[in-house]
Formats: sequence, structure tokens, C-alpha cells
Amino acid sequence: MPTVPIADRHLNLVPFVSVHHMMELVLEIGVERFLKELAAYIEEDFRRWEDFDKTPRVASHSREGVIELMPTSDGRHYGFKYVNGHPKNTRDGRQTVTAFGVYADVETGYPLLISEMTILTALRTAATSALAARYLAPKGARCMAIIGNGAQAEFQAMAFKALLGVDRLRLFDIDQGATEKCQRNLAGLGFEIVACASGQEAVEGAEIVTTVTADKQYATILTDNMVGAGMHINAVGGDCPGKTELHRDILLRSDIFVEYPPQTRVEGEIQQLDAGHPVQELWRVIAGRAVGRRDKGQITLFDSVGFATEDFSALRYVRDKLSGTSHYVDLDLLADPDEPRDLFGMLLRFPGSSLLAKRQGV
Amino acid sequence: MPTVPIADRHLNLVPFVSVHHMMELVLEIGVERFLKELAAYIEEDFRRWEDFDKTPRVASHSREGVIELMPTSDGRHYGFKYVNGHPKNTRDGRQTVTAFGVYADVETGYPLLISEMTILTALRTAATSALAARYLAPKGARCMAIIGNGAQAEFQAMAFKALLGVDRLRLFDIDQGATEKCQRNLAGLGFEIVACASGQEAVEGAEIVTTVTADKQYATILTDNMVGAGMHINAVGGDCPGKTELHRDILLRSDIFVEYPPQTRVEGEIQQLDAGHPVQELWRVIAGRAVGRRDKGQITLFDSVGFATEDFSALRYVRDKLSGTSHYVDLDLLADPDEPRDLFGMLLRFPGSSLLAKRQGV
Repeated sequence: MPTVPIADRHLNLVPFVSVHHMMELVLEIGVERFLKELAAYIEEDFRRWEDFDKTPRVASHSREGVIELMPTSDGRHYGFKYVNGHPKNTRDGRQTVTAFGVYADVETGYPLLISEMTILTALRTAATSALAARYLAPKGARCMAIIGNGAQAEFQAMAFKALLGVDRLRLFDIDQGATEKCQRNLAGLGFEIVACASGQEAVEGAEIVTTVTADKQYATILTDNMVGAGMHINAVGGDCPGKTELHRDILLRSDIFVEYPPQTRVEGEIQQLDAGHPVQELWRVIAGRAVGRRDKGQITLFDSVGFATEDFSALRYVRDKLSGTSHYVDLDLLADPDEPRDLFGMLLRFPGSSLLAKRQGV
Repeated sequence: MPTVPIADRHLNLVPFVSVHHMMELVLEIGVERFLKELAAYIEEDFRRWEDFDKTPRVASHSREGVIELMPTSDGRHYGFKYVNGHPKNTRDGRQTVTAFGVYADVETGYPLLISEMTILTALRTAATSALAARYLAPKGARCMAIIGNGAQAEFQAMAFKALLGVDRLRLFDIDQGATEKCQRNLAGLGFEIVACASGQEAVEGAEIVTTVTADKQYATILTDNMVGAGMHINAVGGDCPGKTELHRDILLRSDIFVEYPPQTRVEGEIQQLDAGHPVQELWRVIAGRAVGRRDKGQITLFDSVGFATEDFSALRYVRDKLSGTSHYVDLDLLADPDEPRDLFGMLLRFPGSSLLAKRQGV
């Protein structure tokens, strides 16, 4: 297993973190500590938001779903994520969302890391939600409703526990099997869990409501009457054009916080509102330039869609954690001829390249 | 070594073609046959140009260079390439351009192939140039000048030999060492080669002139007096904003053919011209909707910058060639839980995941 410092490496090699490696890494660090440390990286990058090149994701839509590239750079490093969203994938045993990402050196353009990001995206989404809630949720909140108990639900629960001390969960999903899976997975991890028969029941007594459903359509997971004064809403599931979770009236009563307005206005809950509707950028709150929660009665809404800087932070964190571990393999990704301008010569000198001459007649 | 049909695979695995594998594959097929077959794939995709989602590349510029993502899709498959351009990289033994790419299934969003593309880009650039020349160069042309004898030069020579029968080369580079390297590499491969002392000397008697220099700046590799009637110019090196190779007057005398005008107007030689200057799209010529070379006296110019569909074609070709070979390894890239919505459960059930419980206190 490779344990050389990642810096002293052959130029052709790029460390690759597989799904297996990522699980090893997460479990070695521990899920809660991983989420806390990752949130700290995300927080640090939000704080220096203006250092980043920002662009809405580059999406290729089809009838079945979407494939997106999410690039960003802080001028020293560059990162991008490939991510798909295909709601019908679960029918044949595939993931709705899979992802991988690359972290690179801006000065040379050389990739420094390739990593699976299906698991890592689940973790960074949850870490970002909990980070936002630390600035927006009522102080001392311990009870959270989670509506939508699919792949992201447990990660949200763990992140809110790790970062805010949330230890009471009220779960609801239209598919009871999903709630049972979630309850089973979280058993013994320090939560008091109530499975609820409706969204209405789930929000009763909850100070934080997380909506994280998966359908690719307009839905109304929360209606106006379900949202009480002082509540923090963590809206994670509405994250592409045509997919929202909250009734428009809730938005009109809430102070809305978003990652990157040009992207969120297209993809988030606020696609239901006029383009000029006031929203606050989360980075301003984190950087101390804007106020998060003002008072106890205020309804706060984090309209989360996921932004490229969060993936950049996640790749940056994973790369920092890899050194000295064996949780990666080296990929022979980059051509590295003896003489940089002699790419053809590299082919010529490749063992067995007499084939080159032999085959000229073919 | 894996030899199972690529279709019957585990959902988590994605075939990866390393630099080593790519060299094996190219040499097994033979360089000239590879270039010919690749050109046929590129031609086929140019012919169905309107099937493709097209967008200019997504570039992240820095002082030292550029990192780009080049996505496209034909509605059934999706491909993108990561490519950097860093002219100063050769100082510390790195490549100016390195690249890798991904080919994916639009219906599921799942990647089907990850491949090195440094070598593959060199091959597809040369194959595209030769393909264009087959429609644009004077019939029966056998003599080509190559100005700029760096990493791409031999690939251009081989492609023009394979597709057009070019077997006389006139080489020039301001660095004599580059010309010597090029001459050495091409020795015994069926060319009559003349090393020239100037660009002026190189173009004498050449029916095709390929310019493929590397500096990231405006340069004048060809001046107006060097370009005679009937010549075909294959301008490969001017490929980003601020980087051109031809004197503007040459452009005004030429019929100009380009890949994708919105990209070429920013990156190609024609960035020197008004935005409205008439250019012909290469795909129209290939599809029989426009005329390429009209007469013997005409100067034709292929203002090549490289477009995403060419990379798509190259990935499509490599994937078709991989089946039944051992020129790849499987990467465990995609999370594949037993139950698609149970990503967290996959972590819980990972061998050694008692760590999860143990670490909760950390």
C-alpha cells in the first residue's frame, strides 16, 4: 500500500480514492468527526467566498435526468464534480445520484486527486446544512423533523447531531419502508426517534424541519399551516428546475438564505418567487457581514441546492486527510515522457513498439 | 486481466484506460490504422452534427495557463474532457497539455469509461486535421510543411500520411532540437524529410502547411508572402484567446473552415477578424451541405481549435475498441449499496464499521 507523501510522487500518477477507500477513510476518522471537520473546511471557504471563481453548474438535461459539471477555483486550486441526477435509476438498482470529482493545481493544471463523490456529496450536503443551521436555527434546538427518509436522511441526522447536538428526530416518508430503514440505521447512535404518519405529525414540536424528498417535480411537502414561528427550515430536496418542496406562502413568510443566488434562483425553492425577491447569501452571514437569525419568532429557510465551492472544500479536506494513509491508489493518468515535448517518442520507445513499424502496412 | 464484456459488469465499476493502456491499445492497433479509424468516427459524428448539444468549453484562466472542461452529448451518450494548457510546464518536466476524459450513459448518468486523453487528444487533433484536409487540401497533395516541431508534430505527420498519403515533410522550428527530435522519431516510417532553416524555406514547394507552435501569445508564424495560391493551411497552434499564428492578411485571402464558430471566434485565428467575417463550418462540408475546395487556386484554411465532439468521438472509438482486450482496469468509482436508497447502511455494514459506533464520542 502506498504511504509516500503525496507531494513526492511521479508526475504521471494521480491518487484515486475509490468508494471502498472513502468508506475506510470515513470510518477511520469517524462519521461525526468527519462531518465536523468537513463543515469547518466548508465554513473556511465560505468565509473567503470572494476568492472563488463562481459559475452556475454546467448541466446537460435529458428526458430521464441530468448530468452536471460543477467547477470552481480559488486561484491556487481548481476542483470540479461530475454528478448525475436520475430519479428513475432506483428501478434497476442504480443510485439516483452518483458523483466523482477532481482537485487540481492551478499553477500546472495537473490533477492532484480523483475521488468518488457519491458518499462524499452525501456528507458535504449534510455538513453544509448543519453549518447553515448553526447560524440560522433557534439556539439550543434539539428536535428535528426529517421529511423524506431516503439516502440523504441519515447523513442529515448525523451532521445535525455532530454540529448542533440535535438528538430527537421525527421521521416521515410517504414510503413507510424508507422510514423504517432510516430508523434501523440510526438505532444505537444516540437519537430518540419517532416515526410519524404524516408530515403534519412530523413537524409537531420540531424546531428544525429538514425536507429531503427525491421526486423530480413540483411537490408540496410543507404547507403554510405546518410552519410555526421560530422554525428553521432546511430545504434540501428542491434542487433543480421544476423540483420544489415548499408551498410558496412559506417562502413569503421566511427569511431566505442561499448559497449562490444565480444558481438558486433557477434550481431552488425560490424559483417560485420573482427574480427580485430578496434573499441573503449564506457566506455573508458566515463572514459576519450579514445577520443570520435575528429573533426567536423569525422563520429562517436555508434553500440548499449544493454549490461547487462545497465540493471543492470536500476534495480539499479529503486530500489533506490522505497523506500517510493507504486509502487511495495511484492512477497512471498523465503522460510523462522523458522529454516533455516528445509524446510520440514515448510511444516509439514503449516496450513492444516494434509493432509501430510492423503495422505500418495495415 | 479483465476480459468480460464491458456490458455485463458490476454497477460500481468503471473501466479506466491509463496512459500505459492507451499506449498498448494504440500500438496493438497500429498508429496509422488507429488514426484512420478514429478519423472515421470523427467524420461520422461531424456528419450528424445537429444531434449534439454544443457549448463553448468552460475555461478557468490563470496567470500560468488554463484548465478547461469540454462537455457534449448526442442524447444517448455524454462525454467531457478535462484539459489544461500551461506553456511554462515544460520548464519543470511537465507536459504543456494533459487531459483525461469521461464517457457516460445519458439514460442513467453512469460513467461508462474514464480514459487518459493526453495521448488520445494528440491523436484526435491530428486525425481531425487530416480529415479536414481530405475535404480541403489540393487533390494528390504529398508535400507538407510542419512549422512547430513539438509534441503534436509527429502525430500530424502520421495522420496526413495515413489519410492523404502525404510522404514528404519540410520541418521548421525556432528550436533546432525540436526539429531533430521530430526527424529522429519519424525516421524509417516512410517519409522523405527536409529540415529547414526558416519558415520561408519550409513552405517552399509545400501544398499543405501545418502550423503547430506552442507559445501562448500572438505570433506571426506565417506572413502573407509565404502563402501561395492553392495552398491548404492547417492552423493548429492558435487555439486560445491571445494566441494566433497567422498574419491577418492571410486570413483575408483564405476560405476559412472552422469547427464551432462561437468557440473559434474567441480562440482561433479568426479572433483577429470582425465577428461577422464569413466562415464555413467543417461539418457542413463533411455532410455535403457546403463545398470544401472549389478550385486549384483557392487558399483554404482550417482554423482548428479542437472541439468537444472530437473528444466524444475519440472516447466512443476507444470504448468500442476495448471490449475483449485487457487494456483497462476497473475502478470502484460508484457507490452501489444493496438497496439504492441505503447509502448510509452501506457505510454501516462496511467491514470494520464497528468504528462507527466506537468513534461516536470522538
